[in-house]
Amino acid sequence: MTVHRHYTLTISCPDRAGIIAAVSSFIAQHGGFIVEASYHTELEAQRFFMRQEIRADSLPFEADELRRRFAPLAQEFDMSWQLADSAVKKRLVVLVSKQDHCLDDLLHRWRSGELLVDIPCVISNHQDLRSFVEWHGIPFIHVDMTDKAAAFDRIAALFEQHRGDTMVLARFMQILPPMLCQRFPGRIVNIHHSFLPSFVGARPYHQAYLRGVKLIGATCHYVTDELDAGPIIEQDTVRIDHGDTVDDLVRYGRDIEKTVLARGLRYHVEDRVLICGNKTIVFR
Amino acid sequence: MTVHRHYTLTISCPDRAGIIAAVSSFIAQHGGFIVEASYHTELEAQRFFMRQEIRADSLPFEADELRRRFAPLAQEFDMSWQLADSAVKKRLVVLVSKQDHCLDDLLHRWRSGELLVDIPCVISNHQDLRSFVEWHGIPFIHVDMTDKAAAFDRIAALFEQHRGDTMVLARFMQILPPMLCQRFPGRIVNIHHSFLPSFVGARPYHQAYLRGVKLIGATCHYVTDELDAGPIIEQDTVRIDHGDTVDDLVRYGRDIEKTVLARGLRYHVEDRVLICGNKTIVFR
Amino acid sequence: MTVHRHYTLTISCPDRAGIIAAVSSFIAQHGGFIVEASYHTELEAQRFFMRQEIRADSLPFEADELRRRFAPLAQEFDMSWQLADSAVKKRLVVLVSKQDHCLDDLLHRWRSGELLVDIPCVISNHQDLRSFVEWHGIPFIHVDMTDKAAAFDRIAALFEQHRGDTMVLARFMQILPPMLCQRFPGRIVNIHHSFLPSFVGARPYHQAYLRGVKLIGATCHYVTDELDAGPIIEQDTVRIDHGDTVDDLVRYGRDIEKTVLARGLRYHVEDRVLICGNKTIVFR
Amino acid sequence: MTVHRHYTLTISCPDRAGIIAAVSSFIAQHGGFIVEASYHTELEAQRFFMRQEIRADSLPFEADELRRRFAPLAQEFDMSWQLADSAVKKRLVVLVSKQDHCLDDLLHRWRSGELLVDIPCVISNHQDLRSFVEWHGIPFIHVDMTDKAAAFDRIAALFEQHRGDTMVLARFMQILPPMLCQRFPGRIVNIHHSFLPSFVGARPYHQAYLRGVKLIGATCHYVTDELDAGPIIEQDTVRIDHGDTVDDLVRYGRDIEKTVLARGLRYHVEDRVLICGNKTIVFR
Repeated sequence: MTVHRHYTLTISCPDRAGIIAAVSSFIAQHGGFIVEASYHTELEAQRFFMRQEIRADSLPFEADELRRRFAPLAQEFDMSWQLADSAVKKRLVVLVSKQDHCLDDLLHRWRSGELLVDIPCVISNHQDLRSFVEWHGIPFIHVDMTDKAAAFDRIAALFEQHRGDTMVLARFMQILPPMLCQRFPGRIVNIHHSFLPSFVGARPYHQAYLRGVKLIGATCHYVTDELDAGPIIEQDTVRIDHGDTVDDLVRYGRDIEKTVLARGLRYHVEDRVLICGNKTIVFR
Repeated sequence: MTVHRHYTLTISCPDRAGIIAAVSSFIAQHGGFIVEASYHTELEAQRFFMRQEIRADSLPFEADELRRRFAPLAQEFDMSWQLADSAVKKRLVVLVSKQDHCLDDLLHRWRSGELLVDIPCVISNHQDLRSFVEWHGIPFIHVDMTDKAAAFDRIAALFEQHRGDTMVLARFMQILPPMLCQRFPGRIVNIHHSFLPSFVGARPYHQAYLRGVKLIGATCHYVTDELDAGPIIEQDTVRIDHGDTVDDLVRYGRDIEKTVLARGLRYHVEDRVLICGNKTIVFR
Repeated sequence: MTVHRHYTLTISCPDRAGIIAAVSSFIAQHGGFIVEASYHTELEAQRFFMRQEIRADSLPFEADELRRRFAPLAQEFDMSWQLADSAVKKRLVVLVSKQDHCLDDLLHRWRSGELLVDIPCVISNHQDLRSFVEWHGIPFIHVDMTDKAAAFDRIAALFEQHRGDTMVLARFMQILPPMLCQRFPGRIVNIHHSFLPSFVGARPYHQAYLRGVKLIGATCHYVTDELDAGPIIEQDTVRIDHGDTVDDLVRYGRDIEKTVLARGLRYHVEDRVLICGNKTIVFR
Repeated sequence: MTVHRHYTLTISCPDRAGIIAAVSSFIAQHGGFIVEASYHTELEAQRFFMRQEIRADSLPFEADELRRRFAPLAQEFDMSWQLADSAVKKRLVVLVSKQDHCLDDLLHRWRSGELLVDIPCVISNHQDLRSFVEWHGIPFIHVDMTDKAAAFDRIAALFEQHRGDTMVLARFMQILPPMLCQRFPGRIVNIHHSFLPSFVGARPYHQAYLRGVKLIGATCHYVTDELDAGPIIEQDTVRIDHGDTVDDLVRYGRDIEKTVLARGLRYHVEDRVLICGNKTIVFR
């Protein structure tokens, strides 16, 4: 848990010798104190990935000035990069249907200060969770799904209007249209209730029950226009046995869904996840 | 760990009230002492499954007499059943290729007395593991695979000639022909190096690497004529991350393959696995 | 998940041959349909333990009549036993301090219908969680701890006045006096934030950090008059590493505490836990 | 799995800004290509820890020249450091008693090329494992323990005579005298058959059984002169239940002991473990 304000610098660029030296020298030259540093080379893609946390008070200027000064170096190495400031909280717009286990888990982490984000609103195609959300002082917005196209346009508009950084599908149970997925690449996080790539699509616990697997799982992933096929952020499994019914699987599944979503979201919010093709690098 | 000689009675029959009472009264009436008892009803199939371990020395007669006396009750309830005697070791015929991690693991459990079976021979399509197998005093039989049909006929013949109860594919790396699979239903145990149903077929670790999963797994299952689709006995998973190459996955995989195969085989050998359609009941 | 009303018969008695036969014959003779049956012999104690779920609608009479008819058999075998009716919900009185992760988890499971109990009140030595509890429509009772002896007398009185079956210490952070522990044996369930017997007492995450362990854990146990030494119901662990601070351990710990408490409580509430000396038999 | 020859540079020094920059610039200035890099600051100790793998063929000189050139920088930052060459295999001297599950596991990993070390000899206080060790072409040395002091002197002498880098206690079942522990700090690796700090000393599975824990574990640690209290490298746990006897615990334990020892040894051999007081930093 980082207590001091810090900047998180994430970089992706073509791999070559000297990148770490160049970046760390740049930081050192301004007196920057590196709290955490992680590196990875993706061999097939020949790309280098990097994440550094720098204590804000170790630098003699603010985030914008740091960005300005870093830009020439970034250009030299042909970097995709961004600098996040821990003082600027990410804004999560959460989408739910009727099931509230993931929502309950997220809101608890939010109100206890474990998940350091802003939640400008919760959007749902049902009214069931209004009271619970509003008890937290968070606006609850109901979107009618009768006209799906119009509904998704409205969701996209609400997301932008609330200046959302990330859209979280916390068991939303609706398939997003490709248009929406393509519009916010790497910004829509879903929790799927199976250990992907097993049991894509509807009723995964039922599929798992019929196949007679001995473990079930959950997968947190970025949404792309191919159903349940986007880059995986986090997964986990739990043991079941022959005595468990589909209802038991659903029950075990709830626990693992909320844990996996919470972990995946935390990595995402702390800028620990970098995307490379259809895979993720997660600097835990 | 059972130290005393015991009989293991496994039963499958149409579900109805009174089965447990009938069977346990039968055993009690002969003074039989039940060491372990497990029950399960498969709701969809409306079948009842049962496993009981009875101390041999608590009964006034031998296994054959017990079988003779139990037969009428079994008929009354329309049972599929069998009675195994712990004094009669199961005979495992093990098939391997070049990789020896599962074989090493099995032979260690065998020679240390943990896996109470006889291994009449090890069959391989390569010569590499001859010395290791023969050091254990176990015959090693090489089968040339140039003519696949002839090779599998020979394997089937060797299995029967050595009075094998179970054929264990300990990373055999050859697909068995349907004829062979159908000939020994519920008697061929395979270890597949993925968490089925994900990554069926060849090079599962490579498939897993390309999909970017965050856990890999292994599956111990009965072989049927549909590739990697037979009833699952045991599975497990292990965490990987973006830093792991395919070679790392293979290395992690070896550990989980041998553990999952060992557990699955143990359940099988101790008559803890009952098959219901394409699923297993595992009375651990 | 059991959907039909059922009776749960739990038995503990000196071990001997014929117990299963006697009990299952008794049930069968009244047409009782056994949904789930589990047995265990504790070798050192030479005691036999048994749990059976019987469908209520398969019997021609109610729970009280079943109890009356079963009593002679129970006496014959010198049984400690009880018969629970799934239609009569257990009453949990929950004690908390300021931390709400376990409480949030329990109340979510309760309001979603996963945890089938009544919660007549939540008792706390702080006011912080009043609003959250009252939003659920559950009375929140503040107990001042200035005079500890008086406070615990009041807690005991409140527990009895609300006809509590089980007192749940959901991170209550107060050590119960021996008098209270002895008064409700097997009825007070605590969640301790370490993998017992490691790190008994205060600040277990701090102790774990100093020792440099690579996993931390949580333990759900019955409270006895010896601190953190009562019979263990459930435990689990989670991996940490050198990069994790004490605050990180506390954060990981919260997730495992709530999961372990939820599992332990579920076993307890479903009468799956039988106590034998300082150990538990948990018929999962 | 690293395929190319590489140098592993491990560093520990007082924490301050600019260390990463200084070291990575030094490497970059000689064209060094960093394959893997890890950093950690131990806050209480105010020490910085670092590990870098550099491809050997990216540098214009050999390991000794690299060491010579790095020395002034190391002195400037007051570093404890070492540079390992992957072409120079570590030499493990393995000590065993009668139980061979850890030995079997290590020798399999060694002969399959997974564990890249030399094993100059195996030392034992029993003759049981001679044949198995010698089948591998490894000298087996029996040491009589009648005179313990003399025996441990001989073990120390054998270790030095065989130029051992690390002494591995693979279930050696003898307590090393403090003299020996102090003579080879950070160079003796033990596997203890419990989840330390629970169940220190003799018969940990028996202790675990009596306490009624629901998980058992194993711990790989450096040996110090305080019994079972040295820096922990790796730990893991496995679930047990009330039906498991002490013999079952021993059996489950064997699997976890060999896995934990193998992982811990791998980290040690790859110079991934740095010691800080009584804790370890493990750069996995």
